[in-house]
Amino acid sequence: MSGIDAASLIAGMGARARAAAVLLAAMPGAEKARALASAAAAIRADAAAIEAANAEDMAAGAANGLSGAMLDRLRLDAGRIEAMAAGVEAVARLADPVGQVIERVERPNGLVLTRVRVPIGVIGIIYESRPNVTADAGALCFMSGNAAILRGGSEAIRSNRAIHAALARGLEAAGAPADAIQLVPIADRAAVGAMLTAEGAIDMIVPRGGKSLVARVQAEARVPVLAHLDGLNHTYIHAAADPEMARALALNAKMRRTGICGATETLLIDRGFADPAPVLKALADAGCELRGDAEVQAIEPRANPATAEDWDTEYLDSILSVKLVDGPAEAMAHIAAHGSHHTDAIVTGDAAVAERFLAGVDSAIVMWNASTQFADGGEFGLGAEIGISTGRLHARGPVALEGLTTYKWVVRGTGQARP
Amino acid sequence: MSGIDAASLIAGMGARARAAAVLLAAMPGAEKARALASAAAAIRADAAAIEAANAEDMAAGAANGLSGAMLDRLRLDAGRIEAMAAGVEAVARLADPVGQVIERVERPNGLVLTRVRVPIGVIGIIYESRPNVTADAGALCFMSGNAAILRGGSEAIRSNRAIHAALARGLEAAGAPADAIQLVPIADRAAVGAMLTAEGAIDMIVPRGGKSLVARVQAEARVPVLAHLDGLNHTYIHAAADPEMARALALNAKMRRTGICGATETLLIDRGFADPAPVLKALADAGCELRGDAEVQAIEPRANPATAEDWDTEYLDSILSVKLVDGPAEAMAHIAAHGSHHTDAIVTGDAAVAERFLAGVDSAIVMWNASTQFADGGEFGLGAEIGISTGRLHARGPVALEGLTTYKWVVRGTGQARP
Repeated sequence: MSGIDAASLIAGMGARARAAAVLLAAMPGAEKARALASAAAAIRADAAAIEAANAEDMAAGAANGLSGAMLDRLRLDAGRIEAMAAGVEAVARLADPVGQVIERVERPNGLVLTRVRVPIGVIGIIYESRPNVTADAGALCFMSGNAAILRGGSEAIRSNRAIHAALARGLEAAGAPADAIQLVPIADRAAVGAMLTAEGAIDMIVPRGGKSLVARVQAEARVPVLAHLDGLNHTYIHAAADPEMARALALNAKMRRTGICGATETLLIDRGFADPAPVLKALADAGCELRGDAEVQAIEPRANPATAEDWDTEYLDSILSVKLVDGPAEAMAHIAAHGSHHTDAIVTGDAAVAERFLAGVDSAIVMWNASTQFADGGEFGLGAEIGISTGRLHARGPVALEGLTTYKWVVRGTGQARP
Repeated sequence: MSGIDAASLIAGMGARARAAAVLLAAMPGAEKARALASAAAAIRADAAAIEAANAEDMAAGAANGLSGAMLDRLRLDAGRIEAMAAGVEAVARLADPVGQVIERVERPNGLVLTRVRVPIGVIGIIYESRPNVTADAGALCFMSGNAAILRGGSEAIRSNRAIHAALARGLEAAGAPADAIQLVPIADRAAVGAMLTAEGAIDMIVPRGGKSLVARVQAEARVPVLAHLDGLNHTYIHAAADPEMARALALNAKMRRTGICGATETLLIDRGFADPAPVLKALADAGCELRGDAEVQAIEPRANPATAEDWDTEYLDSILSVKLVDGPAEAMAHIAAHGSHHTDAIVTGDAAVAERFLAGVDSAIVMWNASTQFADGGEFGLGAEIGISTGRLHARGPVALEGLTTYKWVVRGTGQARP
C-alpha cells in the first residue's frame, strides 16, 4: 500500500474517531464503565480465538527469526488473556476525570469561571510486540473520553486484530460507538508516518516501545507526542544513610527487575558513607556486574573498570555503574550532567540534605529513602498508566487518565459586556 | 550571519539560560518579585534612552515603508514606557506558582507522594513589532522561574535592545542572574530557525504575532509550541434570549474592539428569536458591515450577501457574518464545522439549553450570557497573560504563570523497597 493510501486510510479512521469522540465526551462515567465491562467480557468470550490468532503470530515470528525475548513479549496464553480482561475491568473502576472542576473563580463583575476537565479528543497509540497494549491503551483512552487509533507491531497483527474485534463487539453490545477504539488494519509502516503527520485528525500520539520506535516518532511527528525516552536513573547513598537501608534499596532499585524504566543504572556513594562494602557485595552476590574506577574496585574486587560511556548508558540489564562522590553537590551535578530527568533517589537520614536533593534534582520523579523501581502509575495509585512521560509539558512522570485529558474554561454570566 | 552561526549563537544563549534557570528554579517568590521591581525601576530610569532607541526604529520603519498600523504598534512614548514598567511590577505582585503542591497522596505502603509545581526551564519567545513584549514576556517567564530567550522583530531591534539592557541591569542590581532574560542580538531570520530547532536547549516556544509568524513557527518547530492561531468566535442568540441582552452582547462582542482574538466573527440567530432586527440594526448603526443571505438581508437591508468563505473568515475588522439557524443543534453543528475552538458564546434565558451548549461546544472558552471579548487573561483574573492557547495540550485558553510551569513528583519514604 502506498503512502498516499495510508494517508487516506488514517484520514478516514480519524474522521470516524472524531465522530465517536464527540459522543464519548458527553458519555457519563458509569456508561463508559459499563461499556468497558462489556468489552472485558467479550475478550474472555473470545479467548480461544485470540489464542489461536496469537499462535499464528508466534509461528510467523519464529519463522522470521524473532528473538526469544521478542517472542515472549508477543506470546498470549489463557493467563495473559484473563489478565488483559481484568486490566480492562480495573480501568473501568477508575474515577472518571471528565467533568471534574479543576478551579472555580468568581470575578468582581459577577462572571463565574470554572475550569473543567474534558477529553483531549483522538489519541494515536503506536506500539510494538505486546498485544495486551491493544486492550490496555484502548481502555485508558476510552475511560478518559478519548477515541483511540491503535497501531501495533506487524509481528502481532493477528493477535491485535482478534483482541480489537472483541473490544469493538463488547463496546457495541453496550451501545457505545465501536469507532471509539480503532485498530489500523494494515501492517504497512507508511501507516505510522501517516499517523505522525495527521494534524487535526489525531490530537496526541503516545509511542509505546523501544528507544528506536520512540526516537522515530519524536523525529517525524507533527502531532504532539507524549513520550518516554530514557530512564537513566540514579540512587545516591548520602553519608548519613542508614547502612542496612542503603544496601536494601540499592539492591532493590537495581535488581528487582532490571529491564524496566524505573531501574537504577548508576549508584552514587558518598566517600563519607561508613559502609559501602556490604552494598556492593550484595549487588555482586546477586549477579550484578559492577563498573567503577580503582577506588570502587578496591571496595569490591569483582567490579570491572568503568569507561566514560558508562555514566551515560541505560543498561536495562544486570549492570550498574558505581561512582564515589564528595557530598550532595557533586552527586547532584553528576545527575544533572548524566541523568535523563526520569527518576532519581537519595538515601539519607538527614532531612535537610534530602529536601535539598528533592528540590534541586530536575527529574519527573525524585525520591527520598525509596526504591526507584516504584516509578510506576500503579504504584503511584493512578490505577494504570498509558506510559511515563519524560517530556516537560502537559504531563510528567506516570500518565494515567488525567494525563489523557485537557480542560475548557466555562464562563457563566448574566449579560456582562466588557467595558 | 549564516545559519550555522545562528545555531551556535542560540546554543550558547541556551546554555547560559539553562544555568540561570537552575538558579531561578530555587529562588523564593519574594526574591523574584524584588528583582522584577528592580527591573521596572531600571526601565523607568532608562526611559529617555528607550525613547531615543525607539525613535531610530520609527525612522527606519517609516523609511522602509511600514504601514501606519505597524508604526503605531512599534511606537513607544513616555506613557507606554511607564505602562511597561507598571506591567512588570504587576507581574511581580502575582502569586509565585513554583512550589505549589497540586496533589498529595499517601500510599498504603507509607510512601507519601506530592506533585509539586516547578518551572518548565527555558522558554523562547518569538514576537513582532510591539517592543513592550520584551518586558511583559520576560517578566512572566522570570516570575514563573523560567529563563527566557527573546527574539523580537527586526523593525524593533533598537527598542528591544534598550528595554532588555534596562531589564538585565535591574535584575543584576537585585542579585538575580542577568542571563535569566536574554535577547537575541541579531536581526537575522536564521535565529528564528535556530530557536525552533533548539531541542534540549529551549523547552517551549511561544510565538506572539500575526498568523503568518505563528504558522511558520508551528510548521518548522521541533521544540514544543504554545500557540494561538485563529479566533473565529461565534455568538449564538438562542430563541429564549432576552432581546435587550442579546442586542448589547452582540454589539459588544463584535464592536468593542474588532482587532482582538476574542472578537466575535459570526453571529448565529435562532429563527425562533423574537427580535433580531434591533440586534442587526444596532450593529449596522455602529458601522459594522453585515454579511448574510436573503433572509438576513430581509431583516437588515444594509446587510451584504455572504459567500461560503465568510463562515471560515476571521475578519479582525468591523465585519460580521450572520446566519439564521433552527435551534441549538444547528448552531452547535455550525460552530463545530467552522469555529476555531477559541471562544464561543450563547445568549439565552434557558439554563438547560445553556448547559447543553457549554458542555457540547469544544472550545477553549465557552460562555453563557457574556461577551466573547472577555477572553483575556486579565479578565479571567490571571493577572497577565503570555498568550491564549488554541492547542489542546498543556494549557488551553489564557495562559499566565501557571501555564509556564510543569510539575515533578516528590516521593518521601522510610526505606520502602518494591515487592
